[in-house]
Amino acid sequence: MTNQPAIAPETELALNLQGAACPTPIRQRGQVVMGHGSGGKLSADLIRQLFLPSFDNPALRAGDDAAVVTPPPGHRLALSTDSHVVWPLFFPGGDIGRLAVCGTVNDLAMMGAIPTYLTASFILEEGLELELLTRVVVSMQAAAAEAGVQIVAGDTKVVQRGKADGLYINTAGVGFIPEGVTINGAQARPSDVVILSGSIGDHGIAVLEARGELGFETAVTSDAAPLHQLVAAMLAVSNQVHVLRDPTRGGVASTLNEIAQQSQVGILLQEKAIPVRPPSMRRAKCWASTPVHCQRGQVVGDCRP
Amino acid sequence: MTNQPAIAPETELALNLQGAACPTPIRQRGQVVMGHGSGGKLSADLIRQLFLPSFDNPALRAGDDAAVVTPPPGHRLALSTDSHVVWPLFFPGGDIGRLAVCGTVNDLAMMGAIPTYLTASFILEEGLELELLTRVVVSMQAAAAEAGVQIVAGDTKVVQRGKADGLYINTAGVGFIPEGVTINGAQARPSDVVILSGSIGDHGIAVLEARGELGFETAVTSDAAPLHQLVAAMLAVSNQVHVLRDPTRGGVASTLNEIAQQSQVGILLQEKAIPVRPPSMRRAKCWASTPVHCQRGQVVGDCRP
Repeated sequence: MTNQPAIAPETELALNLQGAACPTPIRQRGQVVMGHGSGGKLSADLIRQLFLPSFDNPALRAGDDAAVVTPPPGHRLALSTDSHVVWPLFFPGGDIGRLAVCGTVNDLAMMGAIPTYLTASFILEEGLELELLTRVVVSMQAAAAEAGVQIVAGDTKVVQRGKADGLYINTAGVGFIPEGVTINGAQARPSDVVILSGSIGDHGIAVLEARGELGFETAVTSDAAPLHQLVAAMLAVSNQVHVLRDPTRGGVASTLNEIAQQSQVGILLQEKAIPVRPPSMRRAKCWASTPVHCQRGQVVGDCRP
Repeated sequence: MTNQPAIAPETELALNLQGAACPTPIRQRGQVVMGHGSGGKLSADLIRQLFLPSFDNPALRAGDDAAVVTPPPGHRLALSTDSHVVWPLFFPGGDIGRLAVCGTVNDLAMMGAIPTYLTASFILEEGLELELLTRVVVSMQAAAAEAGVQIVAGDTKVVQRGKADGLYINTAGVGFIPEGVTINGAQARPSDVVILSGSIGDHGIAVLEARGELGFETAVTSDAAPLHQLVAAMLAVSNQVHVLRDPTRGGVASTLNEIAQQSQVGILLQEKAIPVRPPSMRRAKCWASTPVHCQRGQVVGDCRP
């Protein structure tokens, strides 16, 4: 289930977590047991020893059934959710925790919203190493800090061994859309141009290779990252941004198909104009796919030229 | 995985869904396949044929990366999340879909918030009968209508056979807290009284019996229900409601423990004053538990007398 060496229950770990910024050192021993999802003492221990010190903020610390926050006046709300079931849990350039934060942050940013609050819900498989969960949680907090969002509410469930694949993470997000910003899939117009923010295909290839599904090794790493600052920079210089999308599972091709349907327009692509880094292109060709179908971490922008 | 008879792929079903209020008849055939989570055509079909007609509302219909809604001015936001992994998926008085809606609605209501928007994210096991998924979705929409909330954003992932238990559902919720309402776990004060809204233990016993873990049958049914109207009625007649909780996994005992810790108070219970319906009491005794530990669907209120 994990690629970590087994840890005997009751062995205390002092983790050396590079890049972690936890207010207190996190020590987690042993494995996830059903009681961690019971709502009783073990659940409370997990919250107090792992989630609270990692995600610390006033709304979460209150420990109530829901987090209470104050929205800025005059803004609309953007709401999004995404469950993450990636395997392997760690891959070159990222992990399920980083994906879970970036995915929802980017869904909010693509509406022109300022991503602000996340909820995080964990479905843990009995027997999961707590040290592995800790690494994922620390990665989530690092990504949340990078994205400028707070994880204000959470939930943990445990399922029996064999009823999950290590862990699944759901994040839901709230962002605030300033007055005057209207960006959505129905805004594309004839004569708009499509802009890609960078080379495509790297995330999908990195995960496939980490799975061993391509049968050889490469130096391709995932480029999953929060894109809110890129969006903010675009909006600061142009009020002609019509559509933004973060291509995920279906890649750039599916993303543009969706936009074409929503806006009732046709979109013409020039294959040679699509940036693909050579290693990803080679890998995609070996895998009988095209990079436009395997993508994450880049913005597709649709703007008036 | 399910307690439904197997349905051959490609057999078209015309479902007779009692209580369903779908704008178009839902027909789902066959089983969930990996492609339903691909972000491609099968994903789009599932959204268009099942989720959209069931949950229909303008924010969801827009089909963007995030739903856009306008909050009422002067309200704070309550944010909550809950993943649901109950087995069996259907039990006397409810199902995983009804639980997924009521759980998050009630978490919001317990802060004095008006539950308004939900997100819903599904983790589906490859091979799940689409007819069963349809029943769950229809039940969610019925519960959402009962609770007065809209399901405005969603996500679907599919995991390989044996990597889930049929389906898991995450819901996250947004509620709006009117000015002047301050209800949370830290507000309990000496001389407050604890009020239970009804008899306890029924949901937990109903699920345990549906699992066959008690070894005999009973007429106990789950009382999982949206509690926002009960809360609204309480707040309409009193400004002395300090704490509200919807006891879930840990039951009334764990819930009161949490409140005692958050508010730094002691709470004295009189066992005879706690309402337990005779069937649940008998079942809980047979199971060597006490009903205060197995509960859902009732409010624990903490008010000045």
